[in-house]
Amino acid sequence: MSKIPSVSSRAQRVPPSPIRKLVPFADKAIKEGAMVYRLNIGQPDIATPKQMIDAMRNFDLNIIAYGRSDGEPQLKREFSRYYQRNGIDIMEDQIIVTTGGSEAITFAMSACASPGEEILVFEPFYTNYNGFASLLGIELKPITTTIDDGFHLPPADKIRQAITDRTRAILICTPNNPTGVVLSTDELLTLTEIANDANIFIISDEVYREFCYGDTEHTSILQIYNSESNSILVDSISKRFSACGARIGCIASRNEEVLSAIIRMAQARLCPPVIEQIGTIAALRIPFEEYIGSMVSEFKARRDVLTNELKGIDGVVFREPEGAFYIQVKLPVENSEDFAVWMLTDYRSEHNETVMLAPGAGFYATEGLGLNEVRIAYVLNTDDIKRAINCLRDGLCLYKNRT
Amino acid sequence: MSKIPSVSSRAQRVPPSPIRKLVPFADKAIKEGAMVYRLNIGQPDIATPKQMIDAMRNFDLNIIAYGRSDGEPQLKREFSRYYQRNGIDIMEDQIIVTTGGSEAITFAMSACASPGEEILVFEPFYTNYNGFASLLGIELKPITTTIDDGFHLPPADKIRQAITDRTRAILICTPNNPTGVVLSTDELLTLTEIANDANIFIISDEVYREFCYGDTEHTSILQIYNSESNSILVDSISKRFSACGARIGCIASRNEEVLSAIIRMAQARLCPPVIEQIGTIAALRIPFEEYIGSMVSEFKARRDVLTNELKGIDGVVFREPEGAFYIQVKLPVENSEDFAVWMLTDYRSEHNETVMLAPGAGFYATEGLGLNEVRIAYVLNTDDIKRAINCLRDGLCLYKNRT
Repeated sequence: MSKIPSVSSRAQRVPPSPIRKLVPFADKAIKEGAMVYRLNIGQPDIATPKQMIDAMRNFDLNIIAYGRSDGEPQLKREFSRYYQRNGIDIMEDQIIVTTGGSEAITFAMSACASPGEEILVFEPFYTNYNGFASLLGIELKPITTTIDDGFHLPPADKIRQAITDRTRAILICTPNNPTGVVLSTDELLTLTEIANDANIFIISDEVYREFCYGDTEHTSILQIYNSESNSILVDSISKRFSACGARIGCIASRNEEVLSAIIRMAQARLCPPVIEQIGTIAALRIPFEEYIGSMVSEFKARRDVLTNELKGIDGVVFREPEGAFYIQVKLPVENSEDFAVWMLTDYRSEHNETVMLAPGAGFYATEGLGLNEVRIAYVLNTDDIKRAINCLRDGLCLYKNRT
Repeated sequence: MSKIPSVSSRAQRVPPSPIRKLVPFADKAIKEGAMVYRLNIGQPDIATPKQMIDAMRNFDLNIIAYGRSDGEPQLKREFSRYYQRNGIDIMEDQIIVTTGGSEAITFAMSACASPGEEILVFEPFYTNYNGFASLLGIELKPITTTIDDGFHLPPADKIRQAITDRTRAILICTPNNPTGVVLSTDELLTLTEIANDANIFIISDEVYREFCYGDTEHTSILQIYNSESNSILVDSISKRFSACGARIGCIASRNEEVLSAIIRMAQARLCPPVIEQIGTIAALRIPFEEYIGSMVSEFKARRDVLTNELKGIDGVVFREPEGAFYIQVKLPVENSEDFAVWMLTDYRSEHNETVMLAPGAGFYATEGLGLNEVRIAYVLNTDDIKRAINCLRDGLCLYKNRT
């Protein structure tokens, strides 16, 4: 009888996804005939642009051969044009195409930090950062933001104090998943100053760039004066073209050493998927108003319906999200994961419906935070959002009075 | 004037690809009008199966949504059937679909070793293992194999001696890139015994499974008695369906802790590309003889032509490859990289042709080894191989006599 080796300590630390961990309960509810509104995952219900689908269906290759490690030249050109249209001055040779935003973040983190080094992140944050950091042996050091401050950045001093001699980067996400915060130009200027003083990088995850609902326009880290030397933009087409399964993203930076390091990483994994790159070229050529513009209007309407509905629930605390399509909400329960499971196992509306929520604690690195919060993704049409929040209101009431 | 932060020491260590590093010289030669035979990269010239291309061109989705992190259930089922047909008893829930073999290797390495720990590998080895290991902070510890032994494994004692208390796995590749070795069942039994005794994993890269030209059939690590607890198979469809750009691979293992860890890693990166998974389902359903069988016959013919041509060159040393479509060849030059560059910059045949080779040193981890070797990928038709090796013969002669 042979011994069984254990997986690495690194692998043991990779957390399960709080977004996907309740899937078995949801599957069971569906099997039992319930309608489950999925507010747990940022999978929009909007159709992928026809131009993108057509381009992929009409691809003309006899051999699906390796592409270039840094992405197809035509796609890099279209990404560059897209950034220029958005007021971001980035040339095609400053862009590396990646297999989704996920790979872009992994490469950016790797370029900044070695095993044992730290990256600062404002919590609550996109939970998969945890997975990438664990995989890479990087410590994510959280700086807490709060609902009371609308999840905006804490004072500069608090950020400076968190920097140690092992800190190699600050990771931001704007518009933010899960909080909906859009960082102001002033906040980005402050961050750049802090990063420059400490001689560390800023990694900016801007995959929700166009999803801004307030008066302030989105500012990219690459539009900030004096950010040339240390900014790395990570991006993805998943949300803006409702093509999450295509796995196309990119990295943009003006730091040549970063680009050169990431190209070497990209060479090792050969190339991003080829067919989806063909589709993305077509998607990036669609005029803004024809697709992204109208989609963002739809999401603004959804946000308005959602926040209006949430206002009517006793004990629910939130701030109106400024962007993306998530909201981090405090619920009047002790443990939101228990509640989220209960909604799937025990709660059914009179129409046999329920909702799937993402427990909030998974979006924090600090133990004990977010235990009574959930993240809601408003990726359903307004009618479904109303029905889903009705379930939530009803469920909270029954949960409180359960025996 | 702000300081510029340096990339991480991890990033500095990621090596450029020796397979792709001469691309700029080749591009220049092509621009000058030369015909460059690409023997440097394992990109076959065989058409991707029509069934796979048709399935992708006919995909029927309005939303390219996130797929499952472990891969589409139908694809996992087809992979399982494929393994069963190949005498490998693996169920669909023991399979995780990955973004190419590259991601499969990255996940497998991560599951076995933490930063600072070691994985043993027989050199020369697939050069991109270096990139993945650097990214993950893992030390690849080489055990040298030689042309004189036909690149087969050294005696068991030599392998045992290389194991330290930081060693977490042995990584093998069979059929081998770059050597063409196919490990015998006896060799795999020995390795399993060594791994079991040391309580470490075996990671087996079998992406060239069907490309075997000798009398001995391929044996998978998953077919070896007593390998249940510690074997991880990494695989890819890139070569067997000539679909390198599709980026579809998988991991198969019977170790539940490994599968559970890798599913968590897979969740962080969300899912493999969706359209190529649809294509792969169709590809895996093609009867063996209809595609893979005839392709392998073609590669056997190419190997025979190649080795026959190489035999005619003075001072060239090699062993006949048993599988895959590479050969590691010793050339009568001091530095094969200088020679490979010279072939692209200075050499032209009377028909204005030249060849692109992969310098051999990049396939070794031990400094100073492989300096006079090149890897040749025989991915061209037999006529082109003849022309390419004519260039090599001619070039070697001119290089020797250059002033």
